[in-house]
Amino acid sequence: MGRLAVNPSEFRKDPEMNVIVDLCVVPIGVGVSLSEYIAECERVLAEAGLETQLHPYGTIIEGEWDAVFAAVKACHEAVHTKGAPRITTTIKVGTRVDRVQSASDKVRSVEQKIHGG
Amino acid sequence: MGRLAVNPSEFRKDPEMNVIVDLCVVPIGVGVSLSEYIAECERVLAEAGLETQLHPYGTIIEGEWDAVFAAVKACHEAVHTKGAPRITTTIKVGTRVDRVQSASDKVRSVEQKIHGG
Amino acid sequence: MGRLAVNPSEFRKDPEMNVIVDLCVVPIGVGVSLSEYIAECERVLAEAGLETQLHPYGTIIEGEWDAVFAAVKACHEAVHTKGAPRITTTIKVGTRVDRVQSASDKVRSVEQKIHGG
Amino acid sequence: MGRLAVNPSEFRKDPEMNVIVDLCVVPIGVGVSLSEYIAECERVLAEAGLETQLHPYGTIIEGEWDAVFAAVKACHEAVHTKGAPRITTTIKVGTRVDRVQSASDKVRSVEQKIHGG
Repeated sequence: MGRLAVNPSEFRKDPEMNVIVDLCVVPIGVGVSLSEYIAECERVLAEAGLETQLHPYGTIIEGEWDAVFAAVKACHEAVHTKGAPRITTTIKVGTRVDRVQSASDKVRSVEQKIHGG
Repeated sequence: MGRLAVNPSEFRKDPEMNVIVDLCVVPIGVGVSLSEYIAECERVLAEAGLETQLHPYGTIIEGEWDAVFAAVKACHEAVHTKGAPRITTTIKVGTRVDRVQSASDKVRSVEQKIHGG
Repeated sequence: MGRLAVNPSEFRKDPEMNVIVDLCVVPIGVGVSLSEYIAECERVLAEAGLETQLHPYGTIIEGEWDAVFAAVKACHEAVHTKGAPRITTTIKVGTRVDRVQSASDKVRSVEQKIHGG
Repeated sequence: MGRLAVNPSEFRKDPEMNVIVDLCVVPIGVGVSLSEYIAECERVLAEAGLETQLHPYGTIIEGEWDAVFAAVKACHEAVHTKGAPRITTTIKVGTRVDRVQSASDKVRSVEQKIHGG
């Protein structure tokens, strides 16, 4: 794998890239009931010490890029180990270098606009 | 457009197809602050009388297919009208014909597995 | 990065909103082999007279909003009819009112930047 | 539809998990023209020595999990370095432990069903 030179000073100041991820793991070949596999992912994410928030179509995860994606990989491994022969996952991942914004900041910002506007 | 013949009796019994949608609208070309556009979508969805739940990376919408997708289209129209020249949206949509399951049922089912297991 | 002025009245003049959609239908509860269900969706899209392009993780569809989303609904109906009790679909949908851009324009534009840059 | 027996120990034997990823990087706050940022990602992926296939709404990437996700992270770093203050990315990732399947196998399998069926 090639190395990428990333060197603008303002980006370098924060070598850790924080992410907000929306993770939706779909095991295939295990029937229609998927909740025990999603519960397994929740356990993996909790063990990884990551802040998460379960919603009806996925799980929000906040943290540093490497820690979050190591946990996402661990979810795939755990779901395969639990018996799923195939998995398809959808991930949304947001990063920003202009300012710090948490997942709850995002919701609050929209709600203020709804009620204020 | 061709017509699709859908006729197995069990599907026909419920001509309305209920969906759980996870909607994430991203206006492009309006700078980095997107919350006022998301708030506009929330207003459009509320006006459409749909049940919604805002989360940090999208909005969960429950309802009948046509009503939900008409509202998604209205969101795109509203966001363009508000000034966004370009939009890219990610939608997850779930349907099931084996049983009725609400968005809150999905979360509850996973939580029971986490705490019970 | 600056705010683009998009005249809403200009947008209003064209009541048909063209979309580029990336559709990924995942039937659940039918085992690990999904290709016959995807093939069924391709037939539905072809019958609908839509321009499509199959890729390894979905199908690109171009057309007017209502025609495209009617066909997406018809895909869900057909996949349920074919036997899938549950479906989860991921859709990316792009619209723009600043200019006309086809799916092949998008690829060409990136390729020019790669080879030119 | 039945439960498939996947021997976890068999899965453990192959510590490298191959993935098919569909990557769609959307820089925010850089105006409406995104192709130069996508071209930058293509360069990053090529430097990483990964097999890729550009389509109108993303890029298909095949490879081993760690190599692919290291390259996805490098894309985010490169797009920020190029000037994007904010990025939202959609990733679909597929893994399977029942058999080896390439991205082109997936397309071929659907096409055979379309023409054969």
